[in-house]
Amino acid sequence: MALLIVGSIGLDDIETPFDKIENALGGSTTYIALASSYFTGPVEILGIVGDDFPDSHMKMLENHNIDLDGLEVVKGAKTFRYGCKYHYDLNVRDSLFTHLNVFEKFNPVIPEKSRKSSFIILGNIAPQLQISVLNQLEKPKFVVCDTMNFWIEGAKNDLLKVLPRVNVLIINDSEARLLANEPNLIKAAHNISKMGPEYLIIKKGEHGALLFGNNMIFSAPAYPMENIFDPTGAGDAFAGGFCGYLHKNRDFSFDNLKRAVVYGSVMASFCVEKFSTKGLEDLSYLEIHNRFIEFRELSSFS
Amino acid sequence: MALLIVGSIGLDDIETPFDKIENALGGSTTYIALASSYFTGPVEILGIVGDDFPDSHMKMLENHNIDLDGLEVVKGAKTFRYGCKYHYDLNVRDSLFTHLNVFEKFNPVIPEKSRKSSFIILGNIAPQLQISVLNQLEKPKFVVCDTMNFWIEGAKNDLLKVLPRVNVLIINDSEARLLANEPNLIKAAHNISKMGPEYLIIKKGEHGALLFGNNMIFSAPAYPMENIFDPTGAGDAFAGGFCGYLHKNRDFSFDNLKRAVVYGSVMASFCVEKFSTKGLEDLSYLEIHNRFIEFRELSSFS
Repeated sequence: MALLIVGSIGLDDIETPFDKIENALGGSTTYIALASSYFTGPVEILGIVGDDFPDSHMKMLENHNIDLDGLEVVKGAKTFRYGCKYHYDLNVRDSLFTHLNVFEKFNPVIPEKSRKSSFIILGNIAPQLQISVLNQLEKPKFVVCDTMNFWIEGAKNDLLKVLPRVNVLIINDSEARLLANEPNLIKAAHNISKMGPEYLIIKKGEHGALLFGNNMIFSAPAYPMENIFDPTGAGDAFAGGFCGYLHKNRDFSFDNLKRAVVYGSVMASFCVEKFSTKGLEDLSYLEIHNRFIEFRELSSFS
Repeated sequence: MALLIVGSIGLDDIETPFDKIENALGGSTTYIALASSYFTGPVEILGIVGDDFPDSHMKMLENHNIDLDGLEVVKGAKTFRYGCKYHYDLNVRDSLFTHLNVFEKFNPVIPEKSRKSSFIILGNIAPQLQISVLNQLEKPKFVVCDTMNFWIEGAKNDLLKVLPRVNVLIINDSEARLLANEPNLIKAAHNISKMGPEYLIIKKGEHGALLFGNNMIFSAPAYPMENIFDPTGAGDAFAGGFCGYLHKNRDFSFDNLKRAVVYGSVMASFCVEKFSTKGLEDLSYLEIHNRFIEFRELSSFS
């Protein structure tokens, strides 16, 4: 059973108060795949790029044992491009441009060999596409789903059709408040649970993450980050660490989901330490394990 | 060694989206004293009220074994009064009025019997008064201090004289960012630690609390509150639970400070469940202990 990831792949221009970078590897699929690759395999991605997509990025992904058979390269077309600028406090970013390019016509068709993939991550794409992907799968065993304000506001009806089909919905706190139309985060979580997902994870950035399900709540701390270099992809790195860990051991108990949330937080913390995907390209198992231990020390009391 | 508390005592008019109340018992000292009274004794308070201060409030405090010998009642004068209105999301409040009344001339003089009190909580009053109180004490053993934006902006020089004399500074996240002039909370904490306090606690409301000191960090979760009835006094209830627990067992190790932070969070969670001080008036040891256990279950993983 492969871990199948569907989402965007792109080239980003990112500016922070510390530095700027152009044509950097970006997109939700990329961060999810890299973060999960440290835990499990095979990791298969479903995506689309233009022929301007650098070979070096392809090779780097392949070096992480990421299967690119499902990556369509459209000749004479351009890859999805996104530009943004972060402000001084890094919690606010301005989108500078969004050129969908080939991504505009993305119509994910799952290769025959992957249709039995029963562990799938639906990255942040149109709910309509998420439904289309789910419809191509034979009995998905575990479905993890991301979304964003844009779809909650613009495609809520479709999104509400996705949610009953997912095991875990991963969103951030402002998205949770918007989706539930409720400022109290705990009430919002209960409202969203009624929309169908078996479990709900609410990411709170510098304040950690909450896991809801089975009438239980788990509160994971955030890693104390003094130097956040580039927040881009942190949420996707979280999803990748979370899913990679779960896919590896196939234990869907609440206790193991808690550990997976912490591994997700670990990968997000590595992600933001460097620009673009650099923070996820050269990690060791020992570094990941040690940071997991740091998370435990940070929050344990008796 | 008594637990001595210096701060405000007042009468509040509070309006939330759920209800409104007038002439309710308020003030930092009140919340701190009530919360700490469940853990330890004797609890002594130093404060000032007018002769309009209801006897019923006096009796309720005395029923919690709070020593009111240091409470000055000024004849023909009015008690400090404060009015505020909370918005829908309860994170924003508008101050409606602040009538300092007798509090304007508050000049705390520690009774002779309490000058050897070596465990003191400096509630949120002018740093100048905090210094005056510290100067009256013979070798304070443990000093806990609160402050707020008003003093950070208007009396920073005085505040900077207080900080090297305190063991624990308790502030919220926006106050920490303001005091350190730094948006990153972890960097802000390091900057503030250099200002003198041995330990720093940053309260983050619905996101829990952070404890810094001895090159260690502890992240305490927040209790998942669905029904916050009145946020007034939550920070003071936190300080009271924290100090009451520490005063009881006199163990100032980091491990015990962590437990104290959780007991502070426990008392804050009870505080906001009812209007004014009502949530702190009728608790049992078992309720407090059980909620401590809930906090542990909420955040533990292995």
